[in-house]
Amino acid sequence: MPDLVISPRNTEEVISIVRLCKKHTIPIVPRGSGTNLAAGTAPTSGGIVILFKNMNQILELDEENMTITVQPGIITNSLINFVEKKDLFYPPDPSSKKISTIGGNISENSGGLRGLKYGVTKDYVLGLEAVLPNGETIKTGGKLAKDVAGYDLTKLLVGSEGTLAIITEATLKLLPKPEYQETILAMYHSMEDAAETVSAILASRIIPTTLEFIDRGTLRIIEGYKKIGLPTDCEAVLLIEQDGTNETVRKDMAVIYNICNKYNAFEVQKAETKESAEDLRTARRDALSALAKVRPTTILEDATVPRSRVAPMVREIIHIAEKYEVLIRTFGHAGDGNLHPTCLTDIRDQKEMERVEKALEDIFNAAIKLGGTITGEHGVGEMKAPFLEWKIGKNGIAVMKAIKTAIDPDNIMNPGKIFAKSTKKRVVVNNV
Amino acid sequence: MPDLVISPRNTEEVISIVRLCKKHTIPIVPRGSGTNLAAGTAPTSGGIVILFKNMNQILELDEENMTITVQPGIITNSLINFVEKKDLFYPPDPSSKKISTIGGNISENSGGLRGLKYGVTKDYVLGLEAVLPNGETIKTGGKLAKDVAGYDLTKLLVGSEGTLAIITEATLKLLPKPEYQETILAMYHSMEDAAETVSAILASRIIPTTLEFIDRGTLRIIEGYKKIGLPTDCEAVLLIEQDGTNETVRKDMAVIYNICNKYNAFEVQKAETKESAEDLRTARRDALSALAKVRPTTILEDATVPRSRVAPMVREIIHIAEKYEVLIRTFGHAGDGNLHPTCLTDIRDQKEMERVEKALEDIFNAAIKLGGTITGEHGVGEMKAPFLEWKIGKNGIAVMKAIKTAIDPDNIMNPGKIFAKSTKKRVVVNNV
Repeated sequence: MPDLVISPRNTEEVISIVRLCKKHTIPIVPRGSGTNLAAGTAPTSGGIVILFKNMNQILELDEENMTITVQPGIITNSLINFVEKKDLFYPPDPSSKKISTIGGNISENSGGLRGLKYGVTKDYVLGLEAVLPNGETIKTGGKLAKDVAGYDLTKLLVGSEGTLAIITEATLKLLPKPEYQETILAMYHSMEDAAETVSAILASRIIPTTLEFIDRGTLRIIEGYKKIGLPTDCEAVLLIEQDGTNETVRKDMAVIYNICNKYNAFEVQKAETKESAEDLRTARRDALSALAKVRPTTILEDATVPRSRVAPMVREIIHIAEKYEVLIRTFGHAGDGNLHPTCLTDIRDQKEMERVEKALEDIFNAAIKLGGTITGEHGVGEMKAPFLEWKIGKNGIAVMKAIKTAIDPDNIMNPGKIFAKSTKKRVVVNNV
Repeated sequence: MPDLVISPRNTEEVISIVRLCKKHTIPIVPRGSGTNLAAGTAPTSGGIVILFKNMNQILELDEENMTITVQPGIITNSLINFVEKKDLFYPPDPSSKKISTIGGNISENSGGLRGLKYGVTKDYVLGLEAVLPNGETIKTGGKLAKDVAGYDLTKLLVGSEGTLAIITEATLKLLPKPEYQETILAMYHSMEDAAETVSAILASRIIPTTLEFIDRGTLRIIEGYKKIGLPTDCEAVLLIEQDGTNETVRKDMAVIYNICNKYNAFEVQKAETKESAEDLRTARRDALSALAKVRPTTILEDATVPRSRVAPMVREIIHIAEKYEVLIRTFGHAGDGNLHPTCLTDIRDQKEMERVEKALEDIFNAAIKLGGTITGEHGVGEMKAPFLEWKIGKNGIAVMKAIKTAIDPDNIMNPGKIFAKSTKKRVVVNNV
C-alpha cells in the first residue's frame, strides 16, 4: 500500500509534488491504470503514488504534421478511436488498450497485436515533456521526423518504467489509416505446422499486421469464456491480419492462404465482417482474462526470442511445464517472437509456487539460450529485476545503474524497479 | 591532426586500445569515413583516431529473422547492395552512402532520402556490441523485434557521436525489398507551389518514399556539374518517389501527379527507366559535391522543422541570406522538414565569414522558433555544440552531461563533441 495517492491536475502540480519528495526523500511511483504485468507500479517501498486521471486530455491533433499531443492519463483506446475518426492511425495496441493509459504505455514501451508490421510504442513517441527527480522540467524532441540534437532522451525515457522522470506530456506520431483489412484464423493439428506457416509467410517477404499464435489450452478456455464459436479441437491456431490498400491486402492474403494450406491448416476461416474480425481480435486480447478465471493466481510472462526460434521455444515451454508439473498455456505474437507463457496456479499453495518459480526461471533461461530476452513488452518491473543480468550482463547493469544514479541520485523515482538487490544465479549456462 | 591513427582488426584490439587510453587519459576519436558534416570526427583534442577499415565484414545475414550483423567499417552502399541481391531492403540511405560506413551512420543516426517513409538509421539498429570507456564490453538488444529489458542502451548509443562507447558490431533490421518503384520530377515557378504540393500529398494520406526539394540555385549548379538535362529555368523542383506493390504505387502516383498539376507544376517528368530514376536521385545526392565546387568553402547545415513549416523556413533562409549578403542555396528532405541550407563562402575572407556565422545563427534561431531543431541528421559534433542548449534547454544539457559523465568519467571518448565549453547567446528569443 502507498502512503499517499495524489492526482495532480497539471505539470506545475507534478513539479510541486516532486520537489517535496526530493526534499524529504520520499519514493514516487507514477501509475497509469496499473495494467503492467511485472509489478512495475506496485509501491513496494511505500511513498506517493501519482495517478494521472486528472491529466487525460488531448492537447492538440496536428493533421498536417500527423502528430497528436496528449497528457499521460488518456486511455489508449480513446486516443486510437479519436484519430481513426480523422482517418489517421496510432498503431500500438496493447491488449489492455481499453483501460491502459498512454503514459503507462510509454513508461513500459508497450507492444501489441500490430507490433510485427508497425513496431511498438517507442516507434511513435516523437517528443516528451517530463519532470526530473530534481523538480526541473525537460522537453525532448518535437513534431519532428528527424532530430539528432544530442542524446536521445525521448527514447531513453520510453520504457524506463518511471525510474528516471515523470512524463507529463507526449507528442506521438500518427500514420494514415490503412484503407482495408482482412482477418483470418488458421487451424492446425500440429504446433510445428503453425510455426512453419509463420516462417513461410515471412520468408515469402510478406509482413502481416498481425500474426498471433494461440495454443489449444488457451483456445479452449477462451471459447468457454466467450462462446464465439472458436475451434477447440485443434493443437494451435494462427490469427493473421493484413492491412493496406485493397489490392495489396488481397494479394498478400491469397499468398498467406496458400501457405496455410501448404502447411496443413485443416481449416482457414475468413472474418467476413468487421464485427467478426473484431470478435477474433477480442478473443485473442481476452486470452489473459479468460485464463485468469481458471485458477486463483495467473502469472503471465513475455519471454521473447528471434522469430525463427518460436517453435523451439514453445517446445521448451511444454517440456518445462511437464518437468515441474505446473499448468502453462501459451499464446502470443508469433510473428515477432514475443510469446506469453501463462502459468495458472494458486499463490496459497506454497509447494506449487516453488515449482512455478523454478519453471519461470527455466523459461527465462531457455529464452536467453535461444538468443532472446526476459521481457519483450511487459517491462522488468520488480518481478523480473533479479533476471535482468541474464540478458544484459554485469556491464549492461553497471551502465544502466550509472544512468539511473546520474539522473536520480536519491533514488526517489519508482525505487526497487528494474534493478534488483541481487541477481538470480543462472543454473544452466549453455551457448551463452 | 591526431597524435596517432590505429586500425584495429577485432573487438579485442579495440579493448586493448581503450584500456591504454583510459590508463593514460588519452582522447579517442572513433571514425568511419569522416563524412559527417559537423566536425564530429575531427580530433580537436588530439589523441588517437580509431579507423575501422580492418573491421568491415558482414558477419551474418539471417534471412529468416530478416537481420544482418556487420562490423562497423562496412561501407553503407555495400551493405545495401548485398541485401538487395537477396530481395531484402536496408532503407537508410544517406547521400554519402557510397563512402560512409555503417558505424559512422550509427554514431550519427544518419537519415537519407527515404527517411520520410522508412525512418532513419536508429529505426533499423536492433542490437550492438560496444566497448565502454572503461574497456568493458556490452551487448545490447539482439535479433529481437521486441525487447524491454532495462533502459534502451541501443538507441542511446545510436546518435551518441562516439562520446559514450565504441561500436564494434551491429545487428540491423531488414525489410522485404519493395517490388516496384516510380520516380518523378515536378517543376515549379514558385517555391510556395512546391511547398503546397508537399502539404497536399501528405494531407491526401499518402506517405511517399522520397519527397525532396531543390531550389533554383542548387539545380543550376547541379546541372552545370552533371549535365543530365535538369531544368534550370524554374524556382524549385520536387523529386518524388513511391515504392511498394505495383498497384499501390501506380494508384499513389496518379494522385500525386494530379496534386502536382493542381499546384501549378509546369512540368512533371517521369523517370521511364531505372537508370533515369537513379540519375535523378544521384543528381540530388550530388547536390553537396556540386555546390562545393562554386566557392572555396562550403558549409552545409541541416536545420529541421515540422514539415508544415518548410515553406516559412525556406522564406526565412532567403531573407537571412539577403540580410547578411551571403550566398545560400537550399535543398533537402521537404517531406520530413529536414532542409539543407548550404552556404557557399571562402574561409579566407574573414569579413564574409563573420557574416556567414551570423547568418547560420539566425538560421538555427529560425528553426527553433518554428518548432524545429538545430540538426535533423548531421549531429551536433563540435560545430553545433554551442547551439545545443537552444534546442534542449539547460535542463536537457544537464541530463545529457550527467549521462556522459556517468559512462565516461574521464571524458576520453571523443571529447569536445556535443557539449560546448559555452553556449552561444540567443539574440532573438520569440515564442520559446
